[in-house]
Amino acid sequence: MSNPPPTHSLRINAERLHQRLIDLGAIGALDGGGVCRLALTPEDQLGRECVVEWMHQLGLKVTCDAIGNVVGVRSGQDAQAAPVMTGSHIDTVRTGGLYDGNLGVLAGLEVVQVLNEHNIRTRRPLAVAFFTNEEGARFAPDMMGSLVFAGDMTVEAARAVVGIDGKTVGECLDAIGYAGTVNCGQTPVHAFVELHIEQGPVLESQGVTIGAVEQVQGISWTQYTITGKSNHAGTTPMSMRQDAGFAAAAIAMHARQIATTMGGDQVATVGRIEIKPNLVNVVANHALLTVDLRNTCESSLQHAETQMQDFITQLQKDEQVTITQRSLARFEPVAFDASIVKQVGEVSQRLGLSCQRMPSGAGHDAQMLARLCKAGMIFIPSVNGISHNVKEFTEATDVEAGANVLLQLLVDLSSEPS
Amino acid sequence: MSNPPPTHSLRINAERLHQRLIDLGAIGALDGGGVCRLALTPEDQLGRECVVEWMHQLGLKVTCDAIGNVVGVRSGQDAQAAPVMTGSHIDTVRTGGLYDGNLGVLAGLEVVQVLNEHNIRTRRPLAVAFFTNEEGARFAPDMMGSLVFAGDMTVEAARAVVGIDGKTVGECLDAIGYAGTVNCGQTPVHAFVELHIEQGPVLESQGVTIGAVEQVQGISWTQYTITGKSNHAGTTPMSMRQDAGFAAAAIAMHARQIATTMGGDQVATVGRIEIKPNLVNVVANHALLTVDLRNTCESSLQHAETQMQDFITQLQKDEQVTITQRSLARFEPVAFDASIVKQVGEVSQRLGLSCQRMPSGAGHDAQMLARLCKAGMIFIPSVNGISHNVKEFTEATDVEAGANVLLQLLVDLSSEPS
Repeated sequence: MSNPPPTHSLRINAERLHQRLIDLGAIGALDGGGVCRLALTPEDQLGRECVVEWMHQLGLKVTCDAIGNVVGVRSGQDAQAAPVMTGSHIDTVRTGGLYDGNLGVLAGLEVVQVLNEHNIRTRRPLAVAFFTNEEGARFAPDMMGSLVFAGDMTVEAARAVVGIDGKTVGECLDAIGYAGTVNCGQTPVHAFVELHIEQGPVLESQGVTIGAVEQVQGISWTQYTITGKSNHAGTTPMSMRQDAGFAAAAIAMHARQIATTMGGDQVATVGRIEIKPNLVNVVANHALLTVDLRNTCESSLQHAETQMQDFITQLQKDEQVTITQRSLARFEPVAFDASIVKQVGEVSQRLGLSCQRMPSGAGHDAQMLARLCKAGMIFIPSVNGISHNVKEFTEATDVEAGANVLLQLLVDLSSEPS
Repeated sequence: MSNPPPTHSLRINAERLHQRLIDLGAIGALDGGGVCRLALTPEDQLGRECVVEWMHQLGLKVTCDAIGNVVGVRSGQDAQAAPVMTGSHIDTVRTGGLYDGNLGVLAGLEVVQVLNEHNIRTRRPLAVAFFTNEEGARFAPDMMGSLVFAGDMTVEAARAVVGIDGKTVGECLDAIGYAGTVNCGQTPVHAFVELHIEQGPVLESQGVTIGAVEQVQGISWTQYTITGKSNHAGTTPMSMRQDAGFAAAAIAMHARQIATTMGGDQVATVGRIEIKPNLVNVVANHALLTVDLRNTCESSLQHAETQMQDFITQLQKDEQVTITQRSLARFEPVAFDASIVKQVGEVSQRLGLSCQRMPSGAGHDAQMLARLCKAGMIFIPSVNGISHNVKEFTEATDVEAGANVLLQLLVDLSSEPS
C-alpha cells in the first residue's frame, strides 16, 4: 500500500475561520443579533473592503470585474492552467446571519492560508471569489453577479436594474467603487466548488455532517388572482356562491396534494394568500395567492405545473370564478458535475465524516458557475433548518468539517491535469 | 259562496311608497348612490325627524322610548286590545341602500295611509315602529333597540355601549334628542310582522316574489389563530413542515365540506384569512381565519360546530401546528310563528303572488319581537342578492307586491279577537 499524499493530513484552523466569520458579521450587525448588508449598500462596501484586505494579506492577486465580482487568485505551478475556484457571496438579506454566503468565501480564504503556511504550491492556480448581489433582496434577479460572470446577462442589463429603493445597480456600484475594469464572461475556470450552509433541516434531522449536492431544484412561481362575487355569508346558499376565498384555499390544498402524490423531491408551497373584503360575514370576491413548485427534475416539475393548470381550469368552472395567472419566476433544475459529487463523498469518507447526496432547495452562485465549468457544492447542517433569519446558526464543529472537505477537495481539483 | 270582506280589495299606492323611499334615501345620501345614516348620528336624527313628521301627518300617536325606539299608533275599535305592530329600522350601514330597514317602516306608513283613506277602523290598534341601531355598524350588538324593547337588555347596559368612534349610545341618544320617556320592555304587542328585502339571491333565482320567513338562522362565528413554523419553501421537505397557511386552507375546505355534506340550510363561510410572513417562498408560521356557520336548526348547528372542532383537533396533530380559537358570536336560531308563516302564504295566494317558505340568513328586529309576541316576516327579492351595498336594489313591482301582502296581513291580524 502506498502512503497517502502529504496534503491528506492538511487541516484548516477552525478558530481562525470562526474569528473571520465573527469579524465580517460585525459589519452591518443588527441590534440583538444578525446582519444586514444588502447588496451595494455602504455596509456591503465595508464588508467588501474587509474581505479584500484579507485577500491582500494572504498574497492573493485581487481583481474586480465590471459587475463588482471580486476574485483573489493564488498562483499555481502552471501559470497557464485554468484556476480552480471557490467562493460565494457576502451580501445578506435584511435579517441575515453570519453564515449564508460568508462561510463559502471565508472558508476559501482559510484554505489559502493553510496552503500558504505549508508552502504548498498547487499545480493549478486557486481562486477565491465573492459575487455581487446573490440574495436579490435589493435587486432582482438574485445570483446576479454570478449570472453576469457566466456571461448570461450583460453588464449593461444588470447595471440598469432598479432596486427596491429606486436606485440602479450601476449607480450603486459606482458609488461604492466596485465597478471594476475586468470584463465579465471571459474568465476561464477549471472547476468551481462552493461550501454553504444547507438552509434546511435535512442534514440535522438525519444526523449527517456533509451534504454532497447533486442538483439545485428548478423553481416555478405563479401568482393567481381570483375574481368571484361578494355576498352575504348568511343569505347566500352554498350552491350560489362564487367564493374567491374558497378557491384560494382549494388551490393551496391542491398544491400540497401534488407534492405528496408525486413524492421524491417535489415540494409545493402557498406562502401568500390575501382575500377581500376579508370580513367574517362576507363571501370574498377577490383573492391573490402564490404557488411555489420545485423539483430537481425538469420533466417532473412540468408535470406538477400541468397538474396545477388542469386543476385551475376545472376550479374556474366548478366555483364560477375567474382566475388569472402570472409567472413570477421559472428556472430549470441544475445538475452538478457527477465527478465532483462523487469526490465530496470520497473526501468526507477519508475525513471520517458522514455524508449524503442531496438536492439544494435554494439557489446558489454555484449553479451559475455550472454553466462555465464543472461545479459542485458542499452543504453543512443549519440548526433547526433556519436561514434568512437572525437566528441562523451552524455548529462550530460542522463549520470545521465543511471547511476541511473544501480544503481537501480544492487540493485534489487543483492537481488535476489540463 | 259568501263574498270576500271588502278589505280584501285594498291596495297600497305604489308611487307614494316609492316616493317616501326616495325622500328618506336623500337624507345621508352618498355621492354616486347609496345612503349612510349610521345609528344615532346627525344623519340618523334627520331621518328620524322625517319619519316622525310623516307619522304625525298620518294622525299616529307617536312615542319614543328610553333607547330611542319610535312607535306611531293608529287607534283601533277596541282601545284595550294589544296592538298589531309592523316596522323595522331606518339606520343603515356605511354603504347602505334605500331598502334595507327603510322599506319595512315606510310600507307600514303606507298601510296606515290606505286605511285612513278608506276610513277603516281595525279592531286592534295598529302600530308602526322603527327600532334603534339595528345594523350594529356603529354600536354592538346589532338589533339593539328591538332587544331592549323585548326587555332582554337593560337601557343602562345599552346606553353604556361605546361605538367605533369612542362615543356611547347614551350620549349620542341625548345629543340627537331621542332618549325618550317611555319605559322599555313593557309594551304589549299582539303580533309583529316585518317586511324586508331578502338580502340574498334565493327569491330572484327561483323567480318567486314573496318569501314567507320561517326562521332566522342561528349563527356561530369562530376565529382561529394558527401557529406553525416559518421555513424555506425550497429546502424544507413536505414531511417536515408546520405550515400555518396550509392549515388555514384546510379549515376553509373543511367548512365547505361540512356545509355541503349536511345540506339543507347549513351554510359555512371563511370570509377572513391572513397569513404571515405572507411571502411566496416562505412557509407561513402564522395564520388567522374566521369560520361563520349558520343553520336554522340549533342541533344541526351544534353538529356542524362539533365536526369543525373534531377537524381542528386532528389538524393540530397532522400538521404539527397549534390552533387557538375564540368565539366571536353565537346566536341560536329563531322560529317565527307558524300561523303567521301560513298567513303570508294565504295572503300571497289571494293576491296572485308566488310565495315560498324560506329561512332568513341575516338578523332582523322581528326575531327580537318574537320573544314578546307572535311574529313573522315577509321577504321580497333583492336584485343579484346584493345588500349592505350602494347597489342594493329591488324592483318597484316587488316592493308593491310585498307592501300589499303586508297590508292584507296587518288587516287580518288586527281583526283577531283577544
